[in-house]
Amino acid sequence: MERLHFEEELQVLKQRLLNMGALVESRVHSAVQALIERRLDVAEAIAGGDREVNELQIEIDDRSLKLLALQQPMASDLRLITAAMKINADLERIGDQAVNIAENVIKILPQAPLKPTIDIPRMAQITQGMTRDSLDAFVRKDVVLARSVLKRDDEVDQLKDQVFRVLLTYMMADPGTIERALSLILISRNLERIADHATNIAEDVIFLVEAKDVRHHHEEPTKP
Amino acid sequence: MERLHFEEELQVLKQRLLNMGALVESRVHSAVQALIERRLDVAEAIAGGDREVNELQIEIDDRSLKLLALQQPMASDLRLITAAMKINADLERIGDQAVNIAENVIKILPQAPLKPTIDIPRMAQITQGMTRDSLDAFVRKDVVLARSVLKRDDEVDQLKDQVFRVLLTYMMADPGTIERALSLILISRNLERIADHATNIAEDVIFLVEAKDVRHHHEEPTKP
Repeated sequence: MERLHFEEELQVLKQRLLNMGALVESRVHSAVQALIERRLDVAEAIAGGDREVNELQIEIDDRSLKLLALQQPMASDLRLITAAMKINADLERIGDQAVNIAENVIKILPQAPLKPTIDIPRMAQITQGMTRDSLDAFVRKDVVLARSVLKRDDEVDQLKDQVFRVLLTYMMADPGTIERALSLILISRNLERIADHATNIAEDVIFLVEAKDVRHHHEEPTKP
Repeated sequence: MERLHFEEELQVLKQRLLNMGALVESRVHSAVQALIERRLDVAEAIAGGDREVNELQIEIDDRSLKLLALQQPMASDLRLITAAMKINADLERIGDQAVNIAENVIKILPQAPLKPTIDIPRMAQITQGMTRDSLDAFVRKDVVLARSVLKRDDEVDQLKDQVFRVLLTYMMADPGTIERALSLILISRNLERIADHATNIAEDVIFLVEAKDVRHHHEEPTKP
């Protein structure tokens, strides 16, 4: 594979990661919308269908391994490709969380709504932005954007604690709300895990870009 | 780097992964023991100290990148090294769960014990075995052992659901138990996540070993 072709293949790899990101982001969005709009059909569709995510994950892993194998990549390309593989794994796990949220929604919907929103839609909105921005940061090697993702992770943690406190009050006041409150607590934990994965991606981006300065021994090109 | 040296370096990499596995496993064990034996000092030590885990993670990532860069690895070596990088990330996240468990234990200990054990020690025992066996499966390329890890994941899921049901009953019967019960539910979720990471590792092992038969295009050696 000549260098030009290699560069083209790297671009395709990045594009696929963006596709994967858009896919899992939209699945998380649908799972949370299913909660807000009380749409059991939507929740069931998300809970049942992550084949597309899994197929895309395998394709991306495949492309990464081929790029590692068929070319003598420069050290910087190596880091890029191995970062792509890690990011791919994080995106797949975000997809898993969409399924987990949908499953919790399926449990909750048969019962009367506890309180329409609390902070869960806000948590969902922030984590979706984090997912999108961590990937954009990867594609554009934008460390500033990556760092902004890390900051938002603290915000998500605070919202998670707030959701917990509010729901705890509900449960204490009326044990009849315990089951529904628990499902909402678990959904907020699912969203927190999505934020963690986006944070992992952002950390990979920072390492990818800044290791140039701090880890000189990686900067040697590979032997011809 | 000549081939012999490369093989030696691969062995060191595997050994470091085993060290990492033993380290995070012992931290999970301590965090759960802190709950059982009501040892706040132990919980605080675990919650505060994952520097060693993080340093080992960086060392392993480093070694992997060097092996990818300094040698033209065979396709099978490539898969081994990229699998090592993924496994490393899973082990680090098991380490994170030890910290999360310890933090939940710190919250719970000031209150009177709810019920000494439930199934949490059993869950902890299974997840530790899964972590150890998934790594042994990697080092020995043992698919049978890897598959046994996948099976135990279902067992952990069942125990998690059981812990949930028992604690739900407690909470419903006596709202004074809600806070403690919630912390125990969260600890059971932390253990479930550890089982998920061990499962990821086992799946990586199965792919690593069985892809030889199903993904022929990876079996070409790299160009000289």
